[in-house]
Amino acid sequence: MTVEGLSINLATVRQQWDMRQAVEACLTQGIRAIAPWRDQVAKIGLDEAARIVAANDLKVTGLCRGGMFPAADAEGRAAAIDDNKRAIDEACALRADCLVLVVGGLPQGSRDIVHAREMVADGIAAILPHARAAGMPLAIEPLHPMYAADRACVNTLAQALDICDLLGEGVGVAVDVYHVWWDPDLARQIARAGASGRILAHHICDWLVPTKDLLLDRGMMGDGVIDLKGIRRMIEAAGFLGHQEVEIFSSENWWKRPGEEVLTTCIERFHTVC
Amino acid sequence: MTVEGLSINLATVRQQWDMRQAVEACLTQGIRAIAPWRDQVAKIGLDEAARIVAANDLKVTGLCRGGMFPAADAEGRAAAIDDNKRAIDEACALRADCLVLVVGGLPQGSRDIVHAREMVADGIAAILPHARAAGMPLAIEPLHPMYAADRACVNTLAQALDICDLLGEGVGVAVDVYHVWWDPDLARQIARAGASGRILAHHICDWLVPTKDLLLDRGMMGDGVIDLKGIRRMIEAAGFLGHQEVEIFSSENWWKRPGEEVLTTCIERFHTVC
Repeated sequence: MTVEGLSINLATVRQQWDMRQAVEACLTQGIRAIAPWRDQVAKIGLDEAARIVAANDLKVTGLCRGGMFPAADAEGRAAAIDDNKRAIDEACALRADCLVLVVGGLPQGSRDIVHAREMVADGIAAILPHARAAGMPLAIEPLHPMYAADRACVNTLAQALDICDLLGEGVGVAVDVYHVWWDPDLARQIARAGASGRILAHHICDWLVPTKDLLLDRGMMGDGVIDLKGIRRMIEAAGFLGHQEVEIFSSENWWKRPGEEVLTTCIERFHTVC
Repeated sequence: MTVEGLSINLATVRQQWDMRQAVEACLTQGIRAIAPWRDQVAKIGLDEAARIVAANDLKVTGLCRGGMFPAADAEGRAAAIDDNKRAIDEACALRADCLVLVVGGLPQGSRDIVHAREMVADGIAAILPHARAAGMPLAIEPLHPMYAADRACVNTLAQALDICDLLGEGVGVAVDVYHVWWDPDLARQIARAGASGRILAHHICDWLVPTKDLLLDRGMMGDGVIDLKGIRRMIEAAGFLGHQEVEIFSSENWWKRPGEEVLTTCIERFHTVC
């Protein structure tokens, strides 16, 4: 039996399995779509990762991740651009739907978030010709404002879409419910993203109450307070009918359970609460 | 010597001192403005707290806090409204500049943040006549989006100002840098708040990298990444020249140090980085 419409971001089982093992376990449970991270790909080698994708005809809903554009000096920014071009090539080799961009936060010692945001737009502009030539869409993922300093200074869909409008074709957004569920402007910005064909990915998990860690305490769908069905309705109404990709970082819970149990739970929750 | 323009929110030294002790220590260091919490007032009694304020001619930059409007049933919402009316009366007794509102998050079991936000607007509307009659301004404090579920579903200045526009006179905003520093729309919304005379308070602390706890790891001004001088310039340009109120919750650092050291550091940083 195939589980249609569900993708597993392999960070969800990164403590249990490498990419090869994770794919095998997904296929056993009927999951035919994944989103790997670059370190997981590197660990088994890009050629082998691409072979696994092709041999199993896997859907790759995204490669995580490019981005991290701001840097304290020109060398740092150039290095980030080079690395992003390599990430685009890797995404192509894996036949990914998009390269997910976590754009980066403040350079060490900086308090200038406006400048960091300029460096992000400049960085994406610099890699966009390479991405367009390769036919690889870039998905800006706005991250929750609690990551503004150290991970991503693009923190709302509105902000990500403004960058898309500025840069034109070849760039869109990844809508991760964890990052955007609180946004008072969410419905309007999802509609805006859909109207311009910019929705490239839909990531799911849940926001736990209480949340015990800023990074590694994401919840399984249904265990928190996010209106997952409501947000999915907005996204589908906006024209995106692609996969829902489960991305859970959970150092004290899901990363400690058997991977099979994690996948089984993802499938069950996908059918009942998403 | 008097430290002009600096106020100490007494949560900053809540583990060290009660209100009486905190006021004495503030006066010793030349600080003549404070913002107490209701539990601190209750502990020594409202009459005694009011006597301390009057006897020392203290500036009270705000009383923390009213709010917490959403509830699962009508009884809960009515109880919150009653409690907020008492808070208004207490703020009057303390001659506070405003009653700070932390509006509340999702009721237990709810995933409907849109409805929670409606309950907030309804709750403020319900207490506003009482506040107006008492001459006590209500300061909606938008809280960082990481508190949307459990503390405040008003998470941006834009959202708070929309509520102000809806409700008219007698309500404004408390601008706490910790909650709003990341907002891509910050400059525009501060200007908007100032243009309508809605800025009632300016709270300061800093955002640490890394932040180890969602609630109790706020930084001393200068120890984090917030552009405190830049935000102050925006606020003054918008017409608010009132006190900067230090509000630091810090279970593992500042709450463990001698209170005198905390105040000395606040004064030094206020002069150098704010």
